[in-house]
Amino acid sequence: MRPLPEQIPLRLDAETLLRQISDLGEIGMEPGREGRTRIALTDADKAGRDRLRQWMDALALDVQVDRIGNIFGTLRAEDDQQAPLMIGSHIDSVADAGALDGCYGVLAGLAVVRAFREAGTSPARPITVAAFTNEEGVRYQPDMMGSLVHAGGLDIDAALTTRGTDGTRLGDELARIGYAGDLEPCTLIPHEYLELHIEQGPILEAEGIQIGVVENLQGISWQQVTIKGSANHAGTTPMHLRRDAGWVASSVVSALREIAVDGTLATAGCMRFEPNLINVIPRRATFTVDLRHPDEGRLQVAEQKLAALLARLAEEEGVEVHSEQLVRFEPVTFNPALAAAIEASAGRLGFSHKRMTSGAGHDAQMIARIAPAAMIFVPSHGGISHNPREHTPDDLLLAGAQVLLDVVQQRLAQS
Amino acid sequence: MRPLPEQIPLRLDAETLLRQISDLGEIGMEPGREGRTRIALTDADKAGRDRLRQWMDALALDVQVDRIGNIFGTLRAEDDQQAPLMIGSHIDSVADAGALDGCYGVLAGLAVVRAFREAGTSPARPITVAAFTNEEGVRYQPDMMGSLVHAGGLDIDAALTTRGTDGTRLGDELARIGYAGDLEPCTLIPHEYLELHIEQGPILEAEGIQIGVVENLQGISWQQVTIKGSANHAGTTPMHLRRDAGWVASSVVSALREIAVDGTLATAGCMRFEPNLINVIPRRATFTVDLRHPDEGRLQVAEQKLAALLARLAEEEGVEVHSEQLVRFEPVTFNPALAAAIEASAGRLGFSHKRMTSGAGHDAQMIARIAPAAMIFVPSHGGISHNPREHTPDDLLLAGAQVLLDVVQQRLAQS
Repeated sequence: MRPLPEQIPLRLDAETLLRQISDLGEIGMEPGREGRTRIALTDADKAGRDRLRQWMDALALDVQVDRIGNIFGTLRAEDDQQAPLMIGSHIDSVADAGALDGCYGVLAGLAVVRAFREAGTSPARPITVAAFTNEEGVRYQPDMMGSLVHAGGLDIDAALTTRGTDGTRLGDELARIGYAGDLEPCTLIPHEYLELHIEQGPILEAEGIQIGVVENLQGISWQQVTIKGSANHAGTTPMHLRRDAGWVASSVVSALREIAVDGTLATAGCMRFEPNLINVIPRRATFTVDLRHPDEGRLQVAEQKLAALLARLAEEEGVEVHSEQLVRFEPVTFNPALAAAIEASAGRLGFSHKRMTSGAGHDAQMIARIAPAAMIFVPSHGGISHNPREHTPDDLLLAGAQVLLDVVQQRLAQS
Repeated sequence: MRPLPEQIPLRLDAETLLRQISDLGEIGMEPGREGRTRIALTDADKAGRDRLRQWMDALALDVQVDRIGNIFGTLRAEDDQQAPLMIGSHIDSVADAGALDGCYGVLAGLAVVRAFREAGTSPARPITVAAFTNEEGVRYQPDMMGSLVHAGGLDIDAALTTRGTDGTRLGDELARIGYAGDLEPCTLIPHEYLELHIEQGPILEAEGIQIGVVENLQGISWQQVTIKGSANHAGTTPMHLRRDAGWVASSVVSALREIAVDGTLATAGCMRFEPNLINVIPRRATFTVDLRHPDEGRLQVAEQKLAALLARLAEEEGVEVHSEQLVRFEPVTFNPALAAAIEASAGRLGFSHKRMTSGAGHDAQMIARIAPAAMIFVPSHGGISHNPREHTPDDLLLAGAQVLLDVVQQRLAQS
């Protein structure tokens, strides 16, 4: 057993961490928009990646890029043969985003490594800071793609041929921005994996709690539903003769409240009518349904209720219904020992804390397939994320980073 | 009293009428689309107008264009001091349209005039064939604009400064295509007004009836409703903490069925969510509501029910609701004597017929403000209109034109 973390004088450089969050957040700012836009494999994403590499180089990390563009910066250890302790997240963003989602976790990883560098000490096993490609899935589906490939859940060649919403091929864009690396995916299997993230939800703030100990993560089911009816004149077609795709789609969205029971979350985020003219009954309506639950059985019940509703409306309204599964991830239970370690560190450092479920998807859920993993949350003001108004006060950002550093020290001490 | 129409040997030139419908329908055809697109004041609309003028010139009509671009072709009479009998409709179209909506009525007007020319006789009062500008209202609101200006319901200078959906100014586009005429609006006040049109609804075909005697026209209320809620993460925001603009909008659209009672028609043709992302609760939703009823009181009840529903949801869901009236036309009762004349002509010619209400808006409803007016309908196959599949069999198109010619002869005989 190595010395307990209290005995190693590692100090978090608060100023550098906050400055790097701010600096990275400047990249992708556009005139007329409050937020930044660094969608995966765009020029802005390249600029963010380049900045991250500079910072990794400044810490003299061993930087590797794999074939899907995941960036790994490793601080070598006393014993370099051991599997690394990995701290990861992502730096791509949605459109008009805040500065914290993903970036906070990656830069807090650099802050942990910096603490070792500044103390002039080497860790007991390598520490790898990972920035995974395309977590957001805005341009290329599925989201969490880089960590999914890293965990062996998606074939690298299939991932590289993915077509974007703009018609581009992912592999071409990756090469264009200079991040088509040589490292084979799945090479760097972590000993353990930690991810620090803003909650992106309102619970911690509402309850006045500083640290979330994330012990599991909801299952996610994304569907795109298309209703095909018949376009007709809104002023001349009697109500009983209509096959109104827009009405059917709206009725399904309205009924999602009845599916969202027992802790199920149900959201229709996208909706489109065609031809989308005031006086024409919609011929076609397309919408998305996002269902989530921490329990796989409950999630399946919600999916079945939706399918039954669609089948009933198809028959009653004489419309065609087509449902396409876009994303399906089962719920994830994180590693109990890591969750306990996070809880212990938060307690030792004097931060209020609670065990909780992650509502959002995170790279940690993919890495949990190949290594013990857990997450640390800090509060999101108003629960707001994917929005320029995403905000966490500095003291809470630093509290989360301190817990991360403390957990890393503990886990290394047990190596 | 002049001789009864049976005594004047006027013959409808079926071949020319059908050929002109087909020829005009060729203008605005685009590669890859089945239909034609001659949206008001575009190059394609100009090409259609130019063709119509050629045909008016070939009939040696006195052609005048007014300041809103309405085209009037007048066959001079024995007594040229009398107010004209006007036959009108429009030749602009929606996008990807059929060949009949509007054009059929204008070209049937030319067929009536042609019958006089070919018989070498002059009518007892002038016959004016009118093509009104921008009936469809696709690019510039409101629809039925040319006839509305002609009827004194919209100031010409206000109409000319209307901004289009593409940012253009109506007056500029009118001048650009060469149809900014000199004639002051409201100059040519008709003695009586007739409009022949396809039904654009399913009733005549479903009942196997050849001629619709249109005695009134529904009131129309168009609103655009905007719901402002709060964007939040779909995976982390508990259902009871959401202010989901998309759910509220969908619930209103779904509830339109409860408003569409007692003959009210209610349609949501347009819908837009923002930011329109799968995993983000919609911050904003915008949709349109098209309400119609032949009775003004019933139409107002429907508007009140919608307003009450919006107010209730605003309170219950914590969202902001804004409703903007886009179009509001009261129901119109057409001239009973003209309707009776149409009914009599249809009967005399041996066509099955029924009195009915127009569900769609037509130029006739505007002209009814300044002159006795009525309409003649022929069946629309499947009730389909505003669609390349809009269709009426030739024999029924000719039946409608024969009724029109007969009614014109009757009315002139009474002059």
